[in-house]
Amino acid sequence: MRMVDVITKKRNGHALTKEEIYHFVEGYTKGSIPDYQASALLMAIFYQGMTEQETATLTQAMVDSGETIDLSSITGHKVDKHSTGGVGDKTTFIVGPLVASVGVPVAKMSGRGLGHTGGTLDKLESIKGFHIEMSEQQFVNQVNNVKLAVAGQTGNLAPADKKLYALRDVTATVDSIPLIAGSIMSKKLASGADSIVLDVKTGSGAFMKTLEESESLAKEMVNIGKNLGRNTVAIISDMNQPLGFEVGNANEVKEAVEVLRGEKISDLRSLSLELAAHMTVLAEVMTDYDQAYRALEENLDNGKAFEVFRSFVVAQGGDVEMIDHLDLLPSAKYQVEVKAETDGYVSAIDAESIGIAAMYLGAGRATKDDAINHGVGITLKKKIGDPVKVGETIVVLHSDEDSPTDSINRVKQAYSFTKENVDPKTLIYKVIK
Amino acid sequence: MRMVDVITKKRNGHALTKEEIYHFVEGYTKGSIPDYQASALLMAIFYQGMTEQETATLTQAMVDSGETIDLSSITGHKVDKHSTGGVGDKTTFIVGPLVASVGVPVAKMSGRGLGHTGGTLDKLESIKGFHIEMSEQQFVNQVNNVKLAVAGQTGNLAPADKKLYALRDVTATVDSIPLIAGSIMSKKLASGADSIVLDVKTGSGAFMKTLEESESLAKEMVNIGKNLGRNTVAIISDMNQPLGFEVGNANEVKEAVEVLRGEKISDLRSLSLELAAHMTVLAEVMTDYDQAYRALEENLDNGKAFEVFRSFVVAQGGDVEMIDHLDLLPSAKYQVEVKAETDGYVSAIDAESIGIAAMYLGAGRATKDDAINHGVGITLKKKIGDPVKVGETIVVLHSDEDSPTDSINRVKQAYSFTKENVDPKTLIYKVIK
Repeated sequence: MRMVDVITKKRNGHALTKEEIYHFVEGYTKGSIPDYQASALLMAIFYQGMTEQETATLTQAMVDSGETIDLSSITGHKVDKHSTGGVGDKTTFIVGPLVASVGVPVAKMSGRGLGHTGGTLDKLESIKGFHIEMSEQQFVNQVNNVKLAVAGQTGNLAPADKKLYALRDVTATVDSIPLIAGSIMSKKLASGADSIVLDVKTGSGAFMKTLEESESLAKEMVNIGKNLGRNTVAIISDMNQPLGFEVGNANEVKEAVEVLRGEKISDLRSLSLELAAHMTVLAEVMTDYDQAYRALEENLDNGKAFEVFRSFVVAQGGDVEMIDHLDLLPSAKYQVEVKAETDGYVSAIDAESIGIAAMYLGAGRATKDDAINHGVGITLKKKIGDPVKVGETIVVLHSDEDSPTDSINRVKQAYSFTKENVDPKTLIYKVIK
Repeated sequence: MRMVDVITKKRNGHALTKEEIYHFVEGYTKGSIPDYQASALLMAIFYQGMTEQETATLTQAMVDSGETIDLSSITGHKVDKHSTGGVGDKTTFIVGPLVASVGVPVAKMSGRGLGHTGGTLDKLESIKGFHIEMSEQQFVNQVNNVKLAVAGQTGNLAPADKKLYALRDVTATVDSIPLIAGSIMSKKLASGADSIVLDVKTGSGAFMKTLEESESLAKEMVNIGKNLGRNTVAIISDMNQPLGFEVGNANEVKEAVEVLRGEKISDLRSLSLELAAHMTVLAEVMTDYDQAYRALEENLDNGKAFEVFRSFVVAQGGDVEMIDHLDLLPSAKYQVEVKAETDGYVSAIDAESIGIAAMYLGAGRATKDDAINHGVGITLKKKIGDPVKVGETIVVLHSDEDSPTDSINRVKQAYSFTKENVDPKTLIYKVIK
């Protein structure tokens, strides 16, 4: 098989066969197919798309390019949750213990953050002593005992995806729905879950800015899951403003713990319950969504979910005092208030700008070698639809500098106001099964 | 400037600026832009095309990537002729001396052939002693004295085009009209001509199979020429069958000499006169096409064109006896006749198959290291529209093997017959100025 013929076929709009897709993915992974042919094919895929079958095959080929994690020694139906990335998204810390509290085992591999959205591991490391390094046996034992473990990703999972992603990034071939879907799903599938719940973000702070694009991506990923024998549900949720009120590391953990203690932090609690409900149904622990939702709400309100979280922190070496007394979590030197300069209502909060402002403070990494400052971050005092008056605080920056000018300017730019009352945004747009 | 932004811009259908195109061509030539980014851009160009202005800029950038030949020390207006490649196309040997005979200087750089169409230099080397190596000064002197010189291409002309062409070949990005046009024109412009006449072939034996594609390519090249200050005319001529009756090396030289001696070999003479007439008008040696055509016909019939050819052969060390006595040219051991197996009329002759059959005999190169056998080749005894009877010879193979099976089969496959009389194909479809 000649790679130039594979490129020509896709270029002319024809679907590639399984053999052709594997020829490409295997050859590219081992280096016998050069970057320049891969990038030509990727650009042809950008224009011509891929059928449902091709996308599933590409995903499987990327899974097969490396190791896969075997979770079979963990009792029960393993459900993974994945978010396409949002600012202030700490649902993992709530959803994990929550579904574990009704008996769903959560065996999560996670990564570190880069850019304007934080990483789960970085946030958890706000808790003194918390570590994410463990052997496979320790991981399995913890999930069987505590029902929840979060480990740093190990093993050579989907190396084809890693190599292709790096190439796409420099050849303007990132924005292709089948390629994005295949990339996300290959990593999820290699991580060994039986079922997958996807939280596809939509809006100004998301990778997918429009509902239409988000829906295409969600459908594509659900189709891949189904084609490859994993039950998959996707929720399309709003990212036109950060989720909850806290953006950073320690302050996100704090907000998550508050929800786990039963506090009614509206959007964060709702989205967590929604994701958790679908996970418990997929895990066949609950028979239907309504039953699941009620049971999960109860476990937030009666402290059972919080108890799982405490045990999880203890199991991974974290200082549980910090969880019981949230003011012990790392904090910043200065609390810098940003005030409204106009009367009116908040009409928009550009989540990406808030994320970048937090990164400037030190909460995130601009490059992969940057260190994280766990105490810094941003607290939103006003969200979309809230009335504001001149001089009222809209945002508090938790900063180690007394005047973090770049972050202040970014935050100011992120907020838009109108004179008329504004309807808050929908939180959950669609569920795709 | 980041190359990924240039790719993104083109991918999204926007025209690139002069700075962006030069950034790409210069960076790619010197190696600071990698192959994988170039191939992604080429594929985006395949889909999005280029404006007339972009195509001209790309061409100029490729010219500027290397050396250019300075023909200013040659007296008069230099007109170059270029064919997009056809089987049996020996017009250069006729057109060159013909326009030279009315005073147009012809300073031709030429290449060797690869694949199913032969190269000008290979064909000329059928004449014993003929050499194409000469210094720039010798070349200039010969053009000033004889009005005609053909040299092997020297110098590093349009290296960007060479590098890009090699990349396009393996990334399925050859078939793009602006890229093809830019590639051809960059080499012509670097060769230093003041004006250019293009012979764009169309049909089964041509790179462009349809009239529509050929016309697009012709228009694109004429536009490039105009945008870059060279008068350019393109003729779209038929390649649904080989041109003339001879395909090979020595036998093509022989047929060209016959036309130069005034023989009325219909399509070959007509196309040569057409091309030559446009060249003399562009060179401002003749004022209009009709005047030019009459003068050129006269110089074929009165032997003046032939005299220039003889002087040219002498000047480049060739054995002129071979030209005066064509049976002295190299010949093959065997004349193998292929006979008709049906009664009827010739309805089609696949020129590409005839070219490949000749290559199998040894007349062309399959790879660039192959040696040429000047004596072998193919004589067509029947062309489109000719009546044939069972057992009548349709083709003679001049072969050094007594039974060249592959070539015989190829030739048989190339011919199609019908019961009804067939109109011969149009020779010249269009002239684009």
